[in-house]
Amino acid sequence: MTPKPSRGISRRVLVASAAVLPIALSLPISLSAQAQADPLPSWNEGAAKQAILAFVARVTQQGGPDFVPPAERIATFDNDGTLWCEHPMPVQLVFALDRVKALAPLHPQWKDAQPFKAVLDGDMKALAAAGEHGLMQLVMTAHAGMTTEEFARIVADWLATARDPRFKRPYTELVYQPMLELLAYLRASGFKTFVVSGGGIEFMRPWTERVYGIPPEQVVGSSIKTKFEFRRGIPILFRLPELNFNDDKEGKPVAINEYIGRRPIAAFGNSDGDLQMLQWTTMAGGVRFGLIVHHTDAEREYAYEQNGAFGNLDKALTAAAANNWTVVDMKRDWKVVFPFERH
Amino acid sequence: MTPKPSRGISRRVLVASAAVLPIALSLPISLSAQAQADPLPSWNEGAAKQAILAFVARVTQQGGPDFVPPAERIATFDNDGTLWCEHPMPVQLVFALDRVKALAPLHPQWKDAQPFKAVLDGDMKALAAAGEHGLMQLVMTAHAGMTTEEFARIVADWLATARDPRFKRPYTELVYQPMLELLAYLRASGFKTFVVSGGGIEFMRPWTERVYGIPPEQVVGSSIKTKFEFRRGIPILFRLPELNFNDDKEGKPVAINEYIGRRPIAAFGNSDGDLQMLQWTTMAGGVRFGLIVHHTDAEREYAYEQNGAFGNLDKALTAAAANNWTVVDMKRDWKVVFPFERH
Repeated sequence: MTPKPSRGISRRVLVASAAVLPIALSLPISLSAQAQADPLPSWNEGAAKQAILAFVARVTQQGGPDFVPPAERIATFDNDGTLWCEHPMPVQLVFALDRVKALAPLHPQWKDAQPFKAVLDGDMKALAAAGEHGLMQLVMTAHAGMTTEEFARIVADWLATARDPRFKRPYTELVYQPMLELLAYLRASGFKTFVVSGGGIEFMRPWTERVYGIPPEQVVGSSIKTKFEFRRGIPILFRLPELNFNDDKEGKPVAINEYIGRRPIAAFGNSDGDLQMLQWTTMAGGVRFGLIVHHTDAEREYAYEQNGAFGNLDKALTAAAANNWTVVDMKRDWKVVFPFERH
Repeated sequence: MTPKPSRGISRRVLVASAAVLPIALSLPISLSAQAQADPLPSWNEGAAKQAILAFVARVTQQGGPDFVPPAERIATFDNDGTLWCEHPMPVQLVFALDRVKALAPLHPQWKDAQPFKAVLDGDMKALAAAGEHGLMQLVMTAHAGMTTEEFARIVADWLATARDPRFKRPYTELVYQPMLELLAYLRASGFKTFVVSGGGIEFMRPWTERVYGIPPEQVVGSSIKTKFEFRRGIPILFRLPELNFNDDKEGKPVAINEYIGRRPIAAFGNSDGDLQMLQWTTMAGGVRFGLIVHHTDAEREYAYEQNGAFGNLDKALTAAAANNWTVVDMKRDWKVVFPFERH
């Protein structure tokens, strides 16, 4: 695509253009080389990379049979395990456990009450025994009972200091370099990129713009209810310990419809929690793209298909074959996994 | 703002630019006049117009004390009575009543059952007597029981043929020309414009892009629940007769936080249903802008402060004075009301 000359171009700009023209004309070779630079340098050559490039070429080819207008180029990305590391435990759960520990001095009774006791004792078996109800209690303790602004600050502060125990790095550095390139490549190709995650919408929004280039209004996720009220004459939104929406499995197409209101033409996930999003995106006629990140690299990241209560990769892998979705073999397809490997 | 030269500009474009340069250089006077043209030509000179221009100038002045980065320039607009005509009855209610009439042949029992009988008889008194419960029955009948795609088509088809009885025009032509100019002016000033309406999110999305330049993903509204399922091997979202979210009053800041995830710096409404959105937007420190459209023009549109069950203008008008919100006197401040008046 060639940039169209602006109708509103001013005399000053035209004069300036004329002045730099001789210099600009001397640059065509380097500019042309730049234009053809690999948009996915951290992807090894192979079927996955070729499938991405071929899809983008088809839907962006002006006048082509599969052309999709830019406004309809919606791409949705799962977060945990698709854009950043989710193993051995989703980052948001690490946050919840840390938060309970931080609040414990204010709640001496937690020493004898499950599931809090399990967290304080570091007893993962007892924690698992507390089941979904216990987990929900912890999540609500960590996520509710403050204003939305206070929560955003708590998340930002925690992320600034918390470190992944294996990689000894902030969690926001454990994002996948090839996926960052993919996000940027899609946006440069006229796509609008969205996160559609089972994770908490307000746990992600404080950092997705900085880390993924995805602004808050393009982040969809699970949420708890909030209440509008006045405190000392100031309007606030108070976070209530009550689930509003669970953005997982069948919830993902529902949320895509509710928050985005347009059907994606490309979707990216890594577990059965993303199955319905991939189905909704790709089984609608037209050229569509589905991709699953398969964690096959125990050395550089992790190799797993089971992630306990947090989502397995089973049905989605079977569906991938039937629906011609691209399956990324992390070990084979990714030249680097994390941005810091390039240093 | 001057357009920046593209880094990826090709030799071909540069050569083409050079070829048209002499012609372009002969146009500077008309182009310069165009650049300084009034961005709000349908607004009469006065306090309201000046307040808008002054606010935009302050928050967009690079290096100024009140500068707001483009990413944070979020502006939210109520729809009914703020962007399009809501009187004497919200358009969506007209749609619901028409839809009930269209479906009546399939439901012979409606002839004897309220609130349907009232609709079929055109008995507005009986309809009012059916109360909120009756109204909800009608709304669910008109809005649920089909897929999301079917509903979008039903809405589009209805809007293509329905005509406002007073103005004899499609409802999508009964939008306020000064507000269309305001939307365009804000976007040209780096704002992202959102609809935040008590109306149905899926009743608005089929046409907001064409009429307001606001894409579906920037429309927030009330919603019913949907269910993801397969029909004959095809994934669908089925619309259920169950309220999901009521985007009115206290619901507006809640929805702004949930859907947009950023606090607006400007909000526009016309009734008490918008009071909390205006409070949430403007009572947060920093230079903020609140505006209320006051319907004072019985001749060109309507003059009212009471709109029955559909929202009055009372508390919000009192709050406007206390909070320095701009109140638009439609009769005095708007040169034209509807786009067709210019013809």
